[in-house]
Amino acid sequence: MSEVLITERNRVRRGRKKASYDRETIYRILDEALVCNIGVSVEGQAMVQPSSHWRIGDELMLHGSVKNGLFRALLRGETACITVCLLDGLVFARSAYNHSVNFRSVVLYAKGRLVEDAEEKRNAFDAMLDHYSPGRSSEARPPTRKEMDVTAVFAFPIEEVSAKVRTGGPNDEPEDLALDVWAGVKPVTRVIGELIPD
Amino acid sequence: MSEVLITERNRVRRGRKKASYDRETIYRILDEALVCNIGVSVEGQAMVQPSSHWRIGDELMLHGSVKNGLFRALLRGETACITVCLLDGLVFARSAYNHSVNFRSVVLYAKGRLVEDAEEKRNAFDAMLDHYSPGRSSEARPPTRKEMDVTAVFAFPIEEVSAKVRTGGPNDEPEDLALDVWAGVKPVTRVIGELIPD
Repeated sequence: MSEVLITERNRVRRGRKKASYDRETIYRILDEALVCNIGVSVEGQAMVQPSSHWRIGDELMLHGSVKNGLFRALLRGETACITVCLLDGLVFARSAYNHSVNFRSVVLYAKGRLVEDAEEKRNAFDAMLDHYSPGRSSEARPPTRKEMDVTAVFAFPIEEVSAKVRTGGPNDEPEDLALDVWAGVKPVTRVIGELIPD
Repeated sequence: MSEVLITERNRVRRGRKKASYDRETIYRILDEALVCNIGVSVEGQAMVQPSSHWRIGDELMLHGSVKNGLFRALLRGETACITVCLLDGLVFARSAYNHSVNFRSVVLYAKGRLVEDAEEKRNAFDAMLDHYSPGRSSEARPPTRKEMDVTAVFAFPIEEVSAKVRTGGPNDEPEDLALDVWAGVKPVTRVIGELIPD
């Protein structure tokens, strides 16, 4: 896979050892996450919104209302900052200072491209449903033209992007290792349960 | 509990029926979440970072390095936009269009106050540890002066804030209810596992 683009914006400065610019690593995080956050500067003030995303090839997709203030800023050409964070563990160290969390995060800077072609838009909606449950797009009643029109879809090129990953146990100071304090990792997992039928 | 402040910034415009300005609802979401996202506009570009937060009374707390670009913007007096989102369920409707997610989210606009008083800062660190595991601050080796100094703590007043909550099953169109398509909710839960000792 190709490398991503490293610029002054997406280069990881703090915690560089945790940084990754590997497309496969980044895509795996994006695909596993069900929630992202998108931030845009609107008249000099950052606006951030949680949203649902999905990926099609080298683009990250978001949908929403065109009346949304944040989406209107994207239409004006503002560059968005989109983040995803999967929490994998609570890391308990012997010292207060060395407590940490295990996580996998992605930060993407990109301008949004409004998906206007009807076929591309329909394929994008199908991919969104299949992200939540594989094959779902061929089970559900397809969207009508009107339903398609009220929702905007934006595609963000996954180029100016970075990941940060922390794994493993606590990094205690050598002099703290003998302390009689419990330490280790409590794993954090996301569980999708069985369907509760409607 | 007192009401929060509703301004043009935090008033929910899209999906108003899901909106809440109730402090108890907001605090419960903030306290349950282990990850937030903080966005700040830096020279007209939104920068967003996942972070860990905790709450002390009517303030939301964040910590990090003072060398962090986003934290430097806070020191300059930029207003942050901080979000939290708990995903509670995947909502499968009979129609593609009515698929949704159950969630509880909070969006807060606030300027950060740098916590400089040594005792207040120490109490803030203790509260952070106790957020991850009640009583942890009295078990772990306390932070040294040096450890305290390398980490900055910011307090954000929880005033200009709103929550959005979606619960329940799919909202299908009446004419879709007879379709032979499975529908319902797959609950999503976060599980904190047993300690894996170091």
